[in-house]
Amino acid sequence: MSYSPLLVRLIDALCCMPGVGRKSAQRIAFHLLERNRDGANLLATALAEAAAGIGHCQRCRMFSETELCSICSAGSRDRSLLCVVESPADVMAIEDATGYRGLYFVLMGHLSPLDGIGPEELGASALEKLLGENETKEMIIATNPTVEGDATSHFLAGLAAQRGIQASRIAHGVPLGGELEYVDGGTLSHAFFGRRAL
Amino acid sequence: MSYSPLLVRLIDALCCMPGVGRKSAQRIAFHLLERNRDGANLLATALAEAAAGIGHCQRCRMFSETELCSICSAGSRDRSLLCVVESPADVMAIEDATGYRGLYFVLMGHLSPLDGIGPEELGASALEKLLGENETKEMIIATNPTVEGDATSHFLAGLAAQRGIQASRIAHGVPLGGELEYVDGGTLSHAFFGRRAL
Ligand SMILES: [Zn+2]
Ligand SMILES: [Zn+2]
Repeated sequence: MSYSPLLVRLIDALCCMPGVGRKSAQRIAFHLLERNRDGANLLATALAEAAAGIGHCQRCRMFSETELCSICSAGSRDRSLLCVVESPADVMAIEDATGYRGLYFVLMGHLSPLDGIGPEELGASALEKLLGENETKEMIIATNPTVEGDATSHFLAGLAAQRGIQASRIAHGVPLGGELEYVDGGTLSHAFFGRRAL
Repeated sequence: MSYSPLLVRLIDALCCMPGVGRKSAQRIAFHLLERNRDGANLLATALAEAAAGIGHCQRCRMFSETELCSICSAGSRDRSLLCVVESPADVMAIEDATGYRGLYFVLMGHLSPLDGIGPEELGASALEKLLGENETKEMIIATNPTVEGDATSHFLAGLAAQRGIQASRIAHGVPLGGELEYVDGGTLSHAFFGRRAL
């Protein structure tokens, strides 16, 4: 059966969102058409304006519609701390969960030579420029605890060492409230390896 | 922290979709901005055009951007059969899964007096007009097996009886491939009540 062409196009377009399959796309389309056309219009505008207007902060590469993001341009942040993360979502998670008041640098990925992602793709020259300003005393590396995240961390620590900047990496181990027996083996062995004297 | 206002607005707007909480909205926004701005623009256009252009078929109330939907205007459908469903999603499910070749009527809801949803809100006068055309020989009631769906079915059967039209209701019971012990009690008792001689 050929459904309404506009409806087919909407369902197809909704599938471009991660985690949204055809079934959910259909459910979303019907919900918006039946109950929330205003919401659909607001979403249309927000998408178009975000796609056109949001770029990257020239200093830290976080999403920003201005040359400098709100963190980089805030006078209240501790400019001696630089936390390096893989993605904008990591910045949001750290801002939401921790009291961290330093600056960030967003790699927008991790080293992955097989995919052609080397230092330049991760903004290494922008990072070096930032480190060259001599404000940074400590680089806090918050890349993911994966093979690629580890390699990226190693590369970043090298950049810091060249400039005599202290590098640290956030701790990985058993999550708070997690039960040992349900934690995956990699995490558990990481937690043992990274144990601290009490 | 105040993130990019355009990004905040996009994340808020994405939350208008059912099943999308703040965490998924954030993930979707980042994905579209990092990897699929073309998809974001296509989605924006599809949403705006669907919200503005999709109405309801004047005959069966299915979503349609033309006066009559593609099913009602198709010459190939069996006009003696009328399947009455609660929502457009039900039409799509029946079209996808069954070989049904008759027509539909979409109630866009079910009787729910406490919410002010009576026969008129379900398009009863449009349905009566349709039945008055004397093409319908059988009304297949496919409302959901819920208290409201049952009440709605009872009401529809009454409309059919007034005109001497045969009414039937689709069967409810243990799903094919389902294991008896995992089926909920209501379904199981329904399946017993609706048992057929072999
Ligand atoms: Zn910035
Ligand atoms: Zn129709």
